[in-house]
Amino acid sequence: MKVFVLNGPNLNLLGEREPEVYGTTTLGDIEKLVKSRAEDLKAEVDFRQTNHEGVLVDWLQEARGQADGVVLNPAALSHYSLAVRDAVVACGLPVVEVHLSNIFGREPWRAKSVVSGVADGVIVGLGPLGYVRALEALVAILES
Amino acid sequence: MKVFVLNGPNLNLLGEREPEVYGTTTLGDIEKLVKSRAEDLKAEVDFRQTNHEGVLVDWLQEARGQADGVVLNPAALSHYSLAVRDAVVACGLPVVEVHLSNIFGREPWRAKSVVSGVADGVIVGLGPLGYVRALEALVAILES
Amino acid sequence: MKVFVLNGPNLNLLGEREPEVYGTTTLGDIEKLVKSRAEDLKAEVDFRQTNHEGVLVDWLQEARGQADGVVLNPAALSHYSLAVRDAVVACGLPVVEVHLSNIFGREPWRAKSVVSGVADGVIVGLGPLGYVRALEALVAILES
Amino acid sequence: MKVFVLNGPNLNLLGEREPEVYGTTTLGDIEKLVKSRAEDLKAEVDFRQTNHEGVLVDWLQEARGQADGVVLNPAALSHYSLAVRDAVVACGLPVVEVHLSNIFGREPWRAKSVVSGVADGVIVGLGPLGYVRALEALVAILES
Amino acid sequence: MKVFVLNGPNLNLLGEREPEVYGTTTLGDIEKLVKSRAEDLKAEVDFRQTNHEGVLVDWLQEARGQADGVVLNPAALSHYSLAVRDAVVACGLPVVEVHLSNIFGREPWRAKSVVSGVADGVIVGLGPLGYVRALEALVAILES
Amino acid sequence: MKVFVLNGPNLNLLGEREPEVYGTTTLGDIEKLVKSRAEDLKAEVDFRQTNHEGVLVDWLQEARGQADGVVLNPAALSHYSLAVRDAVVACGLPVVEVHLSNIFGREPWRAKSVVSGVADGVIVGLGPLGYVRALEALVAILES
Amino acid sequence: MKVFVLNGPNLNLLGEREPEVYGTTTLGDIEKLVKSRAEDLKAEVDFRQTNHEGVLVDWLQEARGQADGVVLNPAALSHYSLAVRDAVVACGLPVVEVHLSNIFGREPWRAKSVVSGVADGVIVGLGPLGYVRALEALVAILES
Amino acid sequence: MKVFVLNGPNLNLLGEREPEVYGTTTLGDIEKLVKSRAEDLKAEVDFRQTNHEGVLVDWLQEARGQADGVVLNPAALSHYSLAVRDAVVACGLPVVEVHLSNIFGREPWRAKSVVSGVADGVIVGLGPLGYVRALEALVAILES
Amino acid sequence: MKVFVLNGPNLNLLGEREPEVYGTTTLGDIEKLVKSRAEDLKAEVDFRQTNHEGVLVDWLQEARGQADGVVLNPAALSHYSLAVRDAVVACGLPVVEVHLSNIFGREPWRAKSVVSGVADGVIVGLGPLGYVRALEALVAILES
Amino acid sequence: MKVFVLNGPNLNLLGEREPEVYGTTTLGDIEKLVKSRAEDLKAEVDFRQTNHEGVLVDWLQEARGQADGVVLNPAALSHYSLAVRDAVVACGLPVVEVHLSNIFGREPWRAKSVVSGVADGVIVGLGPLGYVRALEALVAILES
Amino acid sequence: MKVFVLNGPNLNLLGEREPEVYGTTTLGDIEKLVKSRAEDLKAEVDFRQTNHEGVLVDWLQEARGQADGVVLNPAALSHYSLAVRDAVVACGLPVVEVHLSNIFGREPWRAKSVVSGVADGVIVGLGPLGYVRALEALVAILES
Amino acid sequence: MKVFVLNGPNLNLLGEREPEVYGTTTLGDIEKLVKSRAEDLKAEVDFRQTNHEGVLVDWLQEARGQADGVVLNPAALSHYSLAVRDAVVACGLPVVEVHLSNIFGREPWRAKSVVSGVADGVIVGLGPLGYVRALEALVAILES
Repeated sequence: MKVFVLNGPNLNLLGEREPEVYGTTTLGDIEKLVKSRAEDLKAEVDFRQTNHEGVLVDWLQEARGQADGVVLNPAALSHYSLAVRDAVVACGLPVVEVHLSNIFGREPWRAKSVVSGVADGVIVGLGPLGYVRALEALVAILES
Repeated sequence: MKVFVLNGPNLNLLGEREPEVYGTTTLGDIEKLVKSRAEDLKAEVDFRQTNHEGVLVDWLQEARGQADGVVLNPAALSHYSLAVRDAVVACGLPVVEVHLSNIFGREPWRAKSVVSGVADGVIVGLGPLGYVRALEALVAILES
Repeated sequence: MKVFVLNGPNLNLLGEREPEVYGTTTLGDIEKLVKSRAEDLKAEVDFRQTNHEGVLVDWLQEARGQADGVVLNPAALSHYSLAVRDAVVACGLPVVEVHLSNIFGREPWRAKSVVSGVADGVIVGLGPLGYVRALEALVAILES
Repeated sequence: MKVFVLNGPNLNLLGEREPEVYGTTTLGDIEKLVKSRAEDLKAEVDFRQTNHEGVLVDWLQEARGQADGVVLNPAALSHYSLAVRDAVVACGLPVVEVHLSNIFGREPWRAKSVVSGVADGVIVGLGPLGYVRALEALVAILES
Repeated sequence: MKVFVLNGPNLNLLGEREPEVYGTTTLGDIEKLVKSRAEDLKAEVDFRQTNHEGVLVDWLQEARGQADGVVLNPAALSHYSLAVRDAVVACGLPVVEVHLSNIFGREPWRAKSVVSGVADGVIVGLGPLGYVRALEALVAILES
Repeated sequence: MKVFVLNGPNLNLLGEREPEVYGTTTLGDIEKLVKSRAEDLKAEVDFRQTNHEGVLVDWLQEARGQADGVVLNPAALSHYSLAVRDAVVACGLPVVEVHLSNIFGREPWRAKSVVSGVADGVIVGLGPLGYVRALEALVAILES
Repeated sequence: MKVFVLNGPNLNLLGEREPEVYGTTTLGDIEKLVKSRAEDLKAEVDFRQTNHEGVLVDWLQEARGQADGVVLNPAALSHYSLAVRDAVVACGLPVVEVHLSNIFGREPWRAKSVVSGVADGVIVGLGPLGYVRALEALVAILES
Repeated sequence: MKVFVLNGPNLNLLGEREPEVYGTTTLGDIEKLVKSRAEDLKAEVDFRQTNHEGVLVDWLQEARGQADGVVLNPAALSHYSLAVRDAVVACGLPVVEVHLSNIFGREPWRAKSVVSGVADGVIVGLGPLGYVRALEALVAILES
Repeated sequence: MKVFVLNGPNLNLLGEREPEVYGTTTLGDIEKLVKSRAEDLKAEVDFRQTNHEGVLVDWLQEARGQADGVVLNPAALSHYSLAVRDAVVACGLPVVEVHLSNIFGREPWRAKSVVSGVADGVIVGLGPLGYVRALEALVAILES
Repeated sequence: MKVFVLNGPNLNLLGEREPEVYGTTTLGDIEKLVKSRAEDLKAEVDFRQTNHEGVLVDWLQEARGQADGVVLNPAALSHYSLAVRDAVVACGLPVVEVHLSNIFGREPWRAKSVVSGVADGVIVGLGPLGYVRALEALVAILES
Repeated sequence: MKVFVLNGPNLNLLGEREPEVYGTTTLGDIEKLVKSRAEDLKAEVDFRQTNHEGVLVDWLQEARGQADGVVLNPAALSHYSLAVRDAVVACGLPVVEVHLSNIFGREPWRAKSVVSGVADGVIVGLGPLGYVRALEALVAILES
Repeated sequence: MKVFVLNGPNLNLLGEREPEVYGTTTLGDIEKLVKSRAEDLKAEVDFRQTNHEGVLVDWLQEARGQADGVVLNPAALSHYSLAVRDAVVACGLPVVEVHLSNIFGREPWRAKSVVSGVADGVIVGLGPLGYVRALEALVAILES
């Protein structure tokens, strides 16, 4: 079982950027956390980050042929990128969306993700462990 | 470690009501699933359901003295019950909100939960296993 | 044929409360009117009133097993109780919604019922006789 | 007692047009149904249909002198024709509005009728029998 | 100088319909008032009323060839008839819009006329004499 | 008969300011025009202008004791000054509101006057002669 | 003179819950404060709290027969419970609404109380002493 | 193959009315253009214009029996005539909507056509040749 | 202890203006009422009224140096004067806002005060005695 | 004559992705269709697709120097990419926008294209042949 | 070259009022800063502050005859004073608007200035030095 | 001191594109202007332009390590790119946003920049010199 874990803009600065909101864990730490759990679950993880909407769309399309499912944190793109939304539909795979912070308790515009409606599941506010929960959920969907 | 798992209106009909949306698993099945996972995690679960907003508020207040955290599915109350929202804040415990179906992909009014902004985490669209993910998340918060 | 006639908050004060809006007929008078017509139609009527949203949800669930259809006046709950809406769907029976006064000609917020979209029919503004019309309509649906 | 039953645009295609929404009964069938019930009630019915807003306004004005009440299905005009609304007020007679399908459960713009606020009663979603209910309601108003 | 005075739906019932809002003067009385003032001003008046939007559009187009200006009371059509609005522009003549009652002090939807933005002037709330003011204004525009 | 003609902010620059919108007539010219017509009508005119909302309110209150009616052009204050609106009601006199340009055909925010709903009449877009029309209308109201 | 002082959801946790917003005074302390002032004013106070909307409606109806007026803090229910609003009207007694914190300076949704429009008076932001002010106001209304 | 080309209000003035927006081509010129292209495509064209919404609805219903498809320019009616929308659905034929000017680049209310959602295709801003494109598109649909 | 009681536009006409809304008590009567209560409370009152927003801002700034607190009825300015709002913050004193009538039960725009969010307390609908309640509240704040 | 045909995100998956909405024709098929028609019209076509908004902007700028006109399907970018809108204006060439499916009959957010207002023409809902229509329209504009 | 620097309500309290938002620099300090820079630029500065909207309008009109340009900080008036907006247009001079704090990062209503659309330039969030930047910009405009 | 000056989509066409809005100065001219002023201020400028949102985010992140501050003109991205907004926050440097034209006086959607709320300052409408003002402001912030 192959899983893409795809991360959107500015997540590469995790741990440095606004630690009072996002904590001090880096994206590298999260990658390790996710891969360690993936091993237990016999899943292979391809973990990537990009600041480019177009690259995120490319990767979702690439997942179509190469992966069984996607864990997706579109970051700021969540709130307006209908291109990412369409790519989630177009990739035809189970997708679990994840957000580190509780987007419902911050600025009003962060409470709305245009991607969520076409994801299979959404996990919000659980910090780095949210990725682990998302992976487990994805594996469960794929195994069901 | 003691966890309340609290369910709102009409969830007692799960498995019978709109199976094309909510599946055929009953609330009793979910209770078993959650309790089984709780055992692994050395947690005790008190699993309840009510159709009454006031009872849900009472239980959240009761949790204040008797539990360490709450998994909460407020069902239809999610979308307007500010009393439940205030009770989530008032109980002073970690609360993970869970929804069985993907509320972001259904009627527009279902996409907004007035409770989410004050929950610690939110898990949406993962079906019965969403409760298990929520329990794991809650335990992780309590152990951190 | 068994029909539940369920009434929401403050309808027990009918005849006393705001007679310029709601008239001087009491809820007891309406019950008699409805039961008398039910007799003609060979239907049995269980006529109830509650000020509690949760009780209204309980009764709609109870109807699921015990009745063939429901005449429902959710009163003020019409305008926000998504729990009642979900219960109307969940009960799986034909439901005819009825309002005594013309809710479209009063305060703007009264013009919107969150329940109407999932009812089979809606009868508005016909006063106590609206219940009789609703009963006839329900019987016609059940017999069709 | 004389009653006008007035029907708006496209209702002449009833039974042919979108049968999954409006059923297979034709407007002629409804006319028969209504006239048969009118006979029981000692009422005379003048049953008409037009695709022209102006004609509907003319007829409502004509009703002023020639009828005792009106059953009105303005069809699509319900949602924007303030001229029809003003004519309902201007005709000075009891008017019961009727809609075949449940306009509250379809497209959002169908849920709002600009006429309802000035009608005496509104009956929605009961199909052809809704006309019969409307006639009975009108007769009851006229006899009270 | 030739002036069309064009009146929209339900104005033919003036004096009978809602006298508490529109007074007891009939449209015939207004016609006399306007024609008498027109004589002083050496203007010829063609005074008409219709309940049909299409006829009002036809008349505005007819005015294009036959009149020097238009006094227009679109009545309820004011609030939604973009066809009348386009006809006002298309006729290429000075148009003064007039409303008998103060549309800004009644229902919110009456405060908005889609025609006003393309009229040369608008006169509101002055009752039958508003037509006289409008005629004087139109003559002044034509003579300037 | 005594009439106050009250003018709001920036009208003192009339004829200089934005002549493509407001023309080249000055406020002094309008005063002459109005006073000349007032003489015909046996009315006395007190013609004033101020840039201060508070002064406009003071003058409307002063009118209460000293005048029989008011012609009012609140200029930009029309669109937000609820203090002027309340003063129009409080002065207890007939008030005719006048605007030189067609406020319905310019910026969207100019289309809404918070004063119009409590004026007796409103005259818009007729330029300087609009004041004359307003004076005539006021005299007619006072004489009726 | 008999006064009901009715309190809505979560007010029983006062003093414990969010002391930075609501202070450290308990609801018991407020009861004492109010009863002590009531004694001065020769009024008898029945002081109650509930987390149930339906119970609050029941109590307002009970007040109808047993009390002369009501001091009401609907807490979170203020913002959506039209059932409580209707009960305030239905009880037919003077009602003074009170809020401990300044609801106009917090989350936007807290600024709107659906009950206020039908209360006789509203007192906001004055903390526990707001109840005393409300009681004094109620007594003054009853004595006037 | 028979095609109705139906035109709404004020299109008969094309070429005269607002040439800076709509150009100098007349509706007669467009008819010739369309018929010439129809000949190539072996299609017969019935080309009509009306200022009456009701007539447009009548024609769409007439098309049901007599034509294979419709090219429709509802002009101003596009923006509010739900009767025309319902007639498009009711006629059961392929319908291609056409607008001469770019309705998306003019007044905001022109950007929304209530008809477009139920048309098979929409062609906007291409001037008289837009009708030719619409005819070709319709023929292609009918031949596919 | 020194208290400013500041009144906004048109309150000087109290008792004369719209007595059905505001009662027959004059502002002079209220001043006496407030000063008499102030004497009991050992407070000195400076009671003023102005129709000028700028003067109200000046006075709030003057209060900064000369008073201990302010009772403020901004009247119509409440609904839009952000200058008054900023002055309330800038004066740095406790401010209790008061409204004579129930602004939540009148026109929709009256329900929103832009000042309330920065006042310490708000008292609405209690008539002249509302000023006394506000004074007592202010004294209590100052003494706490 | 040189024409760029530019396609936005996810259109490369055409034929595979959501065939119930977009059909089974691939983008390669459309390219052939367009090039074949271009040959008839003596036009040269440069046909491209990208998932990157920035690339689409680059290409529109490139068109400025190298092409005579553009056929543009911005796909999901239509609904929010003001950068693409500005590039359409900046390129200074005739642009015809095309959409395969009827964007007015799907999700509400798809009905609004921020690009349409600055395109020369818009063709919607005609499937692959819409590109051919767009090409013909562009050629006609360039030849006129 | 003569420049008016005009300041709106509450800016006279700068340095005292909310120093966490506006800093500790006083308006006098800013005046010195601006005048010192003006000397370098050979400009004469008339620096004023008022709490009165009407005075600000008077000054903008006065500038018309006496100054070459205006630096304007309308403070709270920015957000609603259309009278100031009209005066900016009417004065016919270059106007640069300045705000000390970042109005886009505070309360939502502060993000909208009704004046900005008619200013030549707008400078926001740069504190006291923003006035210097505005002066430089104004001089550059006047010299260009 | 090192400053990044970053420019968004279509600014590379400056001087060619819409000169009536943006003038004839090219981006190269602005670069020279800025670098010349930078020399006076002992600052080094890295001046860049991109049509790619992702590249703009990359550069803002790069600035984090390599620059002391940023002058940013996000062009069309200002109005929707929350990724750029988050990058502004994430870069942790002082950022001054600049717009060449007065975005508050053009299309409504241009008046809102999602970036402004997190910038340190915003300079709008001052043309090429706005960049110089922004640089001076940035240096002043860095030196303070």
